[in-house]
Amino acid sequence: MVISSKENNIIKYTAKLSKSSKFRKEQKSFAAEGVRICRDGVDSGKFAEYFFYTADAKEKYGEDFNKISSCSKIVCEVSQSVFEKISDTKTPQGFLCVFNMLDKIKKPYTINIRGRYVALENLQDPSNVGTVLRTAEALGMDGVIMSRDCCDVYSPKVVRGSMGAVFRLPLNVVDNLAEYIQELSLQGIASYGSTPRNAEPINSIDCTCGVMLIGNEGNGLTENTLSVCTKRVMIPMFGRAESLNASAAAAILMWEMFR
Amino acid sequence: MVISSKENNIIKYTAKLSKSSKFRKEQKSFAAEGVRICRDGVDSGKFAEYFFYTADAKEKYGEDFNKISSCSKIVCEVSQSVFEKISDTKTPQGFLCVFNMLDKIKKPYTINIRGRYVALENLQDPSNVGTVLRTAEALGMDGVIMSRDCCDVYSPKVVRGSMGAVFRLPLNVVDNLAEYIQELSLQGIASYGSTPRNAEPINSIDCTCGVMLIGNEGNGLTENTLSVCTKRVMIPMFGRAESLNASAAAAILMWEMFR
Repeated sequence: MVISSKENNIIKYTAKLSKSSKFRKEQKSFAAEGVRICRDGVDSGKFAEYFFYTADAKEKYGEDFNKISSCSKIVCEVSQSVFEKISDTKTPQGFLCVFNMLDKIKKPYTINIRGRYVALENLQDPSNVGTVLRTAEALGMDGVIMSRDCCDVYSPKVVRGSMGAVFRLPLNVVDNLAEYIQELSLQGIASYGSTPRNAEPINSIDCTCGVMLIGNEGNGLTENTLSVCTKRVMIPMFGRAESLNASAAAAILMWEMFR
Repeated sequence: MVISSKENNIIKYTAKLSKSSKFRKEQKSFAAEGVRICRDGVDSGKFAEYFFYTADAKEKYGEDFNKISSCSKIVCEVSQSVFEKISDTKTPQGFLCVFNMLDKIKKPYTINIRGRYVALENLQDPSNVGTVLRTAEALGMDGVIMSRDCCDVYSPKVVRGSMGAVFRLPLNVVDNLAEYIQELSLQGIASYGSTPRNAEPINSIDCTCGVMLIGNEGNGLTENTLSVCTKRVMIPMFGRAESLNASAAAAILMWEMFR
């Protein structure tokens, strides 16, 4: 199938998936863009509902094209200008898949008492969430917990920034993070609430398993959530800034669980 | 002075500073946007060439307005639509200063044999460079070294992402990073080249002082630069991704020097 009109309904549908979190939720679908990300999606065992490609990209990434198209229900060649309409990037690679949302978010995974997890509360910047997912996977974390008010994990920036980790990492989205952490405490699972002050330096405690909690970019963790954590932890800091980007802080905190 | 036309020459000049790295270099000036960043600039002892604000922002941030305008040569009120023309952000706060480039980049600082430094080779993403500067300051690094082919440190995204660290952190921009590292070696300063493989795990070595080198997002450090480093170091990783975002990797590596 070849689509050359931006007014085509499938194109309008896909462009809307890229743009609107609300529409993604209604349709229970999302767009994943880029050669690597599309490949990650099908390699993780998902079938794509649609696979859009440009002729140039097909020629350039032949092997990936074959693999992705063999795992896609509908394969559409589109012109460059149509691709730009569905794309979220400035210089599109020319591959985009639409997937149904991942089942794992509907069926929460079980937290292992010896496992290592990161929990995000109200993280709003999709680049931060994507980077945290990527770091969590690279450092071998067992899963990610997100409060419902975090930015949409299916937004194009999160999917791209995660380098495909969104397809592979176990992910629990929870309505009430503080309650959830309390339930884990009852099961003997430790939780570490990160905060800039009045806390133990992260390098002075043993935190090889449990849940590391990271809060909102501007406000940190809520007092409510901090109050139910086993420990309050901090990264000792200098300098006038005395603050870290949320994803940089998360990298250091997860690394401390790992090392 | 009140400017209400987007066609005003000062406005066109400032918009171009926000957009063009080449123009910034020609003019030896850059734009710094946001209340916090403008404030950081004047607090670091710089005088602003221009300070643009909207009436709403003046009312909202009165104290900052007074401080910034007292350290600015020309203070201009602009309408919301004019501000949007000079702004690089989607939801501007309504404060923007134009500064002359910082002298420190012209006069390289001296590397201290007991100090801790981070060196960036060909880092291209302004968000990564901004985050690395912010992290370096928060973790008390003594300075940052950048190869000339890194993205422009005066781009609006770097200035914003650094949370003002760009005004405060000692910064050396060098033409040939490998040669520079070799010179430091002769002075007895250790260098740690980070690379994904064939290297010592960063947590197994002592690296409390010296220079930590971080390479390009896609390709890492060049072989040329790696070959002159005292040690090759890596962050042990798991997972299919087996890669970290450059700024997340930098955070972990700088943290290891610090802890």
